[in-house]
Amino acid sequence: MACRILFSADEARWAAWLPALGAAFKDAGLDVELTTDASEPEAFRYMIHSPDGPVADFGPFTGLEAVMSTWAGVENIVGNETLTVPLARMVDPGMIEGMTEWVTGHVLRHHIGVDRHAANRSGKWLKEHSPPLARDRTVAMLGFGVLGQACARCLAAMRFNVVGWSRAPKRVDGFDCVSGPEGLREALSAADFVVLLLPLTAETENLMDARAIERMKDGAVLMNAGRGALIDDGDLLSALDSGKLGNATLDVFREEPLPPGHPFWKCPKVTVSPHIASETRPRTASRFIAENVGRGLRGLPLLHLVDRRLGY
Amino acid sequence: MACRILFSADEARWAAWLPALGAAFKDAGLDVELTTDASEPEAFRYMIHSPDGPVADFGPFTGLEAVMSTWAGVENIVGNETLTVPLARMVDPGMIEGMTEWVTGHVLRHHIGVDRHAANRSGKWLKEHSPPLARDRTVAMLGFGVLGQACARCLAAMRFNVVGWSRAPKRVDGFDCVSGPEGLREALSAADFVVLLLPLTAETENLMDARAIERMKDGAVLMNAGRGALIDDGDLLSALDSGKLGNATLDVFREEPLPPGHPFWKCPKVTVSPHIASETRPRTASRFIAENVGRGLRGLPLLHLVDRRLGY
Repeated sequence: MACRILFSADEARWAAWLPALGAAFKDAGLDVELTTDASEPEAFRYMIHSPDGPVADFGPFTGLEAVMSTWAGVENIVGNETLTVPLARMVDPGMIEGMTEWVTGHVLRHHIGVDRHAANRSGKWLKEHSPPLARDRTVAMLGFGVLGQACARCLAAMRFNVVGWSRAPKRVDGFDCVSGPEGLREALSAADFVVLLLPLTAETENLMDARAIERMKDGAVLMNAGRGALIDDGDLLSALDSGKLGNATLDVFREEPLPPGHPFWKCPKVTVSPHIASETRPRTASRFIAENVGRGLRGLPLLHLVDRRLGY
Repeated sequence: MACRILFSADEARWAAWLPALGAAFKDAGLDVELTTDASEPEAFRYMIHSPDGPVADFGPFTGLEAVMSTWAGVENIVGNETLTVPLARMVDPGMIEGMTEWVTGHVLRHHIGVDRHAANRSGKWLKEHSPPLARDRTVAMLGFGVLGQACARCLAAMRFNVVGWSRAPKRVDGFDCVSGPEGLREALSAADFVVLLLPLTAETENLMDARAIERMKDGAVLMNAGRGALIDDGDLLSALDSGKLGNATLDVFREEPLPPGHPFWKCPKVTVSPHIASETRPRTASRFIAENVGRGLRGLPLLHLVDRRLGY
């Protein structure tokens, strides 16, 4: 009997996802019945879930073995008390590539001073001394998981110095890794560019507040591709206004779309990037989901399971 | 007896170069006497030369064995009939890194659409479909020498498709290489981003004219980090005005600094980068010069000699 799988996401996403999932399950040789119709909840063994879809109460899904999130960040679902089966995060090769391109692109943008020249219509030849090389600059990756490490490898290949910070001590070949509050101070004070790629948890909320920002180098750049609430918005704006920080390049916000009245829009030192750094791409993501469902059906542990206690 | 070497460059450059060269010669164990005083021209065995320095007539330097240019582009000196000894181009690791960072930075800038968001103060959340990935984009490198290949390796590591075009057929492991007029058409029509890293010769002058630009994809981006005269300025402006090309990001110009009245300054689709992509860095460049002088003194052929017939 075919394994029944519910796809629960915003209807607008079906057109892209359903054929991609269908092809991925077929390529994986899995006999599944994929549907968006939740009318027989007890019949589903797996659910592919996005927080913008209809399912918020997992209670009626009594036959469920696991939930596969289509999002990398699971802060909207991890605290859901009706969800008692394993939850897997999305780790999509397309998403990793997109994130690497966004982070490297914006680091290089600030490193080589693109904005100064891209907008220069003055007729003035803005030539200064030789710009520094990547080997003279340091990037701090706050969050050193799959995405942070992929970005770090790309930046290190360009000769940037990279330091990775994580909650718990970690060893990653070829990288300077630090952890805990002491490690955070060290990473912040060393970096010309600070990149946030952390999950949102009780521990990381408002991590970048006035005290943390004060540790950063004068004129440094803060980039957020993790979650909006990692930053205290007011403290960041103060640090930009005072000249402490050179720029904030933000892809994520406490409220998305960022409301038209938010002061970030008016601050010339803020770039509002509309949550495009790391899109889940149905084509590549569907292959990961099919692989994970296949593991479940063969009785193997799922990949990238969320630790509900840690929140990611 | 110490080998006498003349340093002939704009006086403003002495302060950075002389100590760097002194240290590099010392580290290389070479017994040299380095000076900026050309009053005994026949006594010099080597000359370190920049076109902005005082020496334009090499005739009086009767003992000269070779000239080391501090510039990668030698179009200002290669046709000098008083220069009859070997001429070496500058190939500086710092310059290669700087060029790689500039090219990769601007390719990523256009690839991820930085400008659209960096300048957006409208309060409008400019979210479109998933941006394409680097693996979906092609970069054409026109000029596939030391600099072009270094940029290509970096872009390929980020999964961009890269095609290299050179005057003469060339094989470079891991890259699609084309040459000649047919190869040029092929490279231009395949590329989302066309990067010019060619020397300026009679053959390459005005290479990017209306006909060549017409071969490019609609909306493609042209980047020039070679020499200004590779492009027909008027034809480029027409192609930007008509909407044929999306952007031109230019680091080099027919006249530098670019005159305040030049129409490039007023065109919103042109970025005027003030010849910063590839600075020769005295510290790293001096090591290369010392290595080359050492080769000369030991009777070995110099590295990166210019072929006067080809002009580079």
